[in-house]
Amino acid sequence: MDANNPALNQAIFAGVDVGGTKTLICLSDKDGTVVAQQQYPTRLNPEPKLFFEWLFGQLEQICNECQLSVSRLSGIGFGFPGVIDDEAGILTDAPALQWPELDIRPIINAYYSGPIYLDNDVNAAALGEHWLGAARNERNFIMITVGTGIGCALYLNGQLYKGADFAAGEVGHLIINRERAASHAVLSSDEFGPFERVASGTGIGALARQYLQTNAEKGAAIIELAEGQAERVETKHVFAAYASGDQAAAEILEAPFEHMSIAIANAVMLLNPRLIVLGGGVASAKNGYLDEIKSRVERYTQAARAASIVPAQLGNEAGAIGCIAAVLSKQAEANH
Amino acid sequence: MDANNPALNQAIFAGVDVGGTKTLICLSDKDGTVVAQQQYPTRLNPEPKLFFEWLFGQLEQICNECQLSVSRLSGIGFGFPGVIDDEAGILTDAPALQWPELDIRPIINAYYSGPIYLDNDVNAAALGEHWLGAARNERNFIMITVGTGIGCALYLNGQLYKGADFAAGEVGHLIINRERAASHAVLSSDEFGPFERVASGTGIGALARQYLQTNAEKGAAIIELAEGQAERVETKHVFAAYASGDQAAAEILEAPFEHMSIAIANAVMLLNPRLIVLGGGVASAKNGYLDEIKSRVERYTQAARAASIVPAQLGNEAGAIGCIAAVLSKQAEANH
Repeated sequence: MDANNPALNQAIFAGVDVGGTKTLICLSDKDGTVVAQQQYPTRLNPEPKLFFEWLFGQLEQICNECQLSVSRLSGIGFGFPGVIDDEAGILTDAPALQWPELDIRPIINAYYSGPIYLDNDVNAAALGEHWLGAARNERNFIMITVGTGIGCALYLNGQLYKGADFAAGEVGHLIINRERAASHAVLSSDEFGPFERVASGTGIGALARQYLQTNAEKGAAIIELAEGQAERVETKHVFAAYASGDQAAAEILEAPFEHMSIAIANAVMLLNPRLIVLGGGVASAKNGYLDEIKSRVERYTQAARAASIVPAQLGNEAGAIGCIAAVLSKQAEANH
Repeated sequence: MDANNPALNQAIFAGVDVGGTKTLICLSDKDGTVVAQQQYPTRLNPEPKLFFEWLFGQLEQICNECQLSVSRLSGIGFGFPGVIDDEAGILTDAPALQWPELDIRPIINAYYSGPIYLDNDVNAAALGEHWLGAARNERNFIMITVGTGIGCALYLNGQLYKGADFAAGEVGHLIINRERAASHAVLSSDEFGPFERVASGTGIGALARQYLQTNAEKGAAIIELAEGQAERVETKHVFAAYASGDQAAAEILEAPFEHMSIAIANAVMLLNPRLIVLGGGVASAKNGYLDEIKSRVERYTQAARAASIVPAQLGNEAGAIGCIAAVLSKQAEANH
């Protein structure tokens, strides 16, 4: 026995946050103290069996480094970039993974027979922030992640609210501008919706490149940040220019700011949460995003009960930590 | 003992739906079978003590007619047109009643010492529809009432969701059109918000009178329904003309239909409920409202999980019946 290795002396859980690009595995004890973590480029595979073969290979390796084996883990929680029902195990609306509609639990059970928990990645992040992050002890909050896309999780009456078909928080297609609504009908569910198309990182980058086609002079500072190539401008360049007071950047960001603020204001009026937790690459960078959203939402919700808008605290790890929180509380319920 | 009078042989509950104009009292058994009911013009009084003196006078009378006394009631539930916390007993945001911010439970207890339940009127109506109406056995639904104003109740994860400050569903100030958002900041919480100003019965009437000022000829059919006086046109006249295919009525209703449909579509995408129950005077009349809203919402939510849009079933009694349901389940919890 290695007395310095906590993994040997207590229950250890794994949280696996499967992203379209990266997958993060965290091992922690029952208090959320991380004993090991590792991030991998996701090895995408349309065949779930082959995906989990790869994933459990990585998991076995990280466990071995802690002198553990996968079978000795006390539980594994998985977060996926799509809609999934923990009780049916079928992942849908996950364009990054493109799996067939089948129950993935037997596939997982072939590698691990202990307690598992399956959820959407943003739901998992919300559970993480609730357990150890920005939303500790909150009974009612909304988590919104602004990155490549826009994710949303609802934590209401002291528990995750997932909706009738586990699709609550699928806000990509929200209609913010009535004029844009008409264009909505032609979208398929795999595409970015009107809201996401404007307010996500992907949307902001596209808006910027479009803007610069006709405003190259005005946008010179932004283009310079992309090494002089307007067609290579990304969201981060827009925010870098915005942070230094660039007028073109402010113009590009006007619609994304406004869309996000109206969406949040409407969610605050409908749901009266105590807290809005903003996470994801775009929202969590120190780029002025949070302050601008805060001041606009405040203006729009003057006549309503206010909610505090705060940054996520667990960053990248929120999802994996939340997966551990979920498998822990699922076990606690089962033991009742 | 009167064997024909069920009130004497079993537990009888009272549901009291206090409205700004009318107050409905229902007495029922534990299965919701109504044994007596009576509607009164609400005797408004800024002094809650005097209001309840009047109300309990009416309650005593209806009980007497059933050979009961108020003290023998097994529970009383109250619905109010405002925001109220059952545990604090303070009614706010109730412009129709304008009571001071004080706990009304001791005032009620002076007349009745049994179990009571206090809630918002739309929440109560949702509980009624859940118990015996359009939303039986549903775990996730939204109730929207369109009448003088617009009310909304959220029933999520098998229970009412009231929000952090009991203000969930206060949708009057939702922002549907970005352009209208700017005007939003100047509203006080007593006024109709931008959404309610367009989509409520009050809003539709005002829109119609404004429209007719410059379109008197086109709107002749509507004006005729109001006995030839454009300034007396009300919502019901607009819908009567709309039902017979009047073009002016369709033009007046375009913005109200569109606002309501976008609000519902966004709520469906955010919350993924199984059902939207539409109630209230405007929505429940056989005037084409429901069908038009259904078809627009369907168009806007094509890329999302659909929810059925159905009419409320209990009509006027939903609130009082829901108050009884609530006091019953509060008692059941207390007995656990």
